[in-house]
Amino acid sequence: MSSDQKTQTEAQSIDQQLFTEYAFSVDQLMELAGYSCAVAIAKCYPVEEMTKDNHAVLVCCGPGNNGGDGLVCSRHLKMFGYKPTIFYPKRPSKPLFEALYQQCEGMGMPVLSFFPSEAHLITDSYNFVVDALFGINFKAPMRPEFEPVMETLKKVESPICSIDVPSGWDIEKGNANGLQPEMLISLTAPKLCAHLFKGKHHYLGGRFVPRTLEQKYELNLPPYPGTDCVVELKDSQDDGNA
Amino acid sequence: MSSDQKTQTEAQSIDQQLFTEYAFSVDQLMELAGYSCAVAIAKCYPVEEMTKDNHAVLVCCGPGNNGGDGLVCSRHLKMFGYKPTIFYPKRPSKPLFEALYQQCEGMGMPVLSFFPSEAHLITDSYNFVVDALFGINFKAPMRPEFEPVMETLKKVESPICSIDVPSGWDIEKGNANGLQPEMLISLTAPKLCAHLFKGKHHYLGGRFVPRTLEQKYELNLPPYPGTDCVVELKDSQDDGNA
Repeated sequence: MSSDQKTQTEAQSIDQQLFTEYAFSVDQLMELAGYSCAVAIAKCYPVEEMTKDNHAVLVCCGPGNNGGDGLVCSRHLKMFGYKPTIFYPKRPSKPLFEALYQQCEGMGMPVLSFFPSEAHLITDSYNFVVDALFGINFKAPMRPEFEPVMETLKKVESPICSIDVPSGWDIEKGNANGLQPEMLISLTAPKLCAHLFKGKHHYLGGRFVPRTLEQKYELNLPPYPGTDCVVELKDSQDDGNA
Repeated sequence: MSSDQKTQTEAQSIDQQLFTEYAFSVDQLMELAGYSCAVAIAKCYPVEEMTKDNHAVLVCCGPGNNGGDGLVCSRHLKMFGYKPTIFYPKRPSKPLFEALYQQCEGMGMPVLSFFPSEAHLITDSYNFVVDALFGINFKAPMRPEFEPVMETLKKVESPICSIDVPSGWDIEKGNANGLQPEMLISLTAPKLCAHLFKGKHHYLGGRFVPRTLEQKYELNLPPYPGTDCVVELKDSQDDGNA
C-alpha cells in the first residue's frame, strides 16, 4: 500500500484529535468527506455513462457517522446530475443528522420506506449502490434489522461503492463472507482491512489531515494531485496478501 | 453575464433560505465556499509558479462571514502547498470563528499582528493577497481601523483575489475608487456589482444551491463542469458596461 493502514483505535484517535486539538467540527469534516466520496464515485461511474432510470442511484445510510457521510455524498451526487434515492431506516435524533436528512429531502430525493428483499429489483433500478451503513465504529454482531439488508446487498449486481469500510467488515480483519464492494473510498487514511479489498477502485478522500497529525500517526498518505480532493490508491490489489 | 447578478437583499435572502428551508449550517456552506475559493485561486495562480518566499501568500480576513470564508480558504491553500500568512485583526467571539482560527493556528500559519503600511513590503513578500475583509453585508462607511488597510492594499502590486465582493465595494454599485482586484470569486451567485469587475479572472464557487432555489430566484447559474466546485465566468469583461 502507498499509505499505512490504521487499526480501529488509531482511526478513532485521529478523528478525536481532529475534533479536539484542531477544533474541527463534525459538520465540516463530514461535508468534506462526503463531498470527496461523491467526487471519487463520479470519476469511476461517470454520470453520462449511467444507463438505468435517468441516472438513478441508491444510497444506503446507517445510524452513525458513516450514514452522515452517505447523506452528504447523496447531496453532492445530486448536484453532479445523478438521481439518488435514499435508504435511511435508523435516524439518530441529533441536530446534525436531522439537518443532513432535511437537506436531502429539500432537494427532492426519494426515500425508500423499506428495503426490497429481492436483489434484482435493486440491480434493475439503480446504476450503483453507495454503502454508507457502517464505518469505523462498527463491532459485530450487526443490529438484527440490518442483517436482511446486508444479505440482499450481497446479491445485488450493480456496483457497490463502500464509504470508508465495507459494511459488516471488521475494521481490522475484514469479513470474507461479507459484502465485496467494487469500490472503496477510504477516508482520512485507509483502515487495516483495506488490504483485503479486492474490488476495482480504491480511492482515498478527506484531504484535511494536518501535516503534523499525519506525521504523528505515520500515515504516509500519498500526495493528492493538484487541488483534487481524492487520490486513487492504485496498488491496493498488488499487495492484497500483505 | 452568464448568470443574473443579485442585489444585497436578494443575496441575503438566498443565504437565509439555505439556512432555514434547507437546514444548511453556516459551518457546512462556509467550508464549501472557502474550499471553492482555494480551488479557483490555485487554478489561476498555480503553486508551482509561485516565486516569492517559499509559496507565501497573505490572507486578509474581516470580522464577518467573508472573513470566515477566508480562514477556510487559507486552510485549503495550505493543503495545496501554499504558505498562507493570516491577517485577522477583529475576531468575533463566536464558536465557529474561534474554531476556524484555531484550525489555522493548529496548522502552523503565521499571523500578522499589524498590517504593514508600506505596500512594497507586501508586494515583495507575498505571491498574492486574498481579500476576505468584507462581503455581502458590508455597508459604507468602513470601520475606521480598516481604512489604512484598504489604502495599503490599493497600492499592493501582487495580484489581489477578492472573495465574493471586492472589499469596500457597495454590493450593487461597486466602488470606482476602491480596491480593483485581479481576481473575483463570486459565491452562490454573482452580486450586482460583479459587472463592474474589470480584473482578469472571474469565477463562481459554492456549488450547493438546490435547483428549486436557483429557479425561484432566477439565478440562471452556468453549469459547473463535471465534479468541479468552481466555474469560470468568461464573459464578465465583455459586458462590463451592461
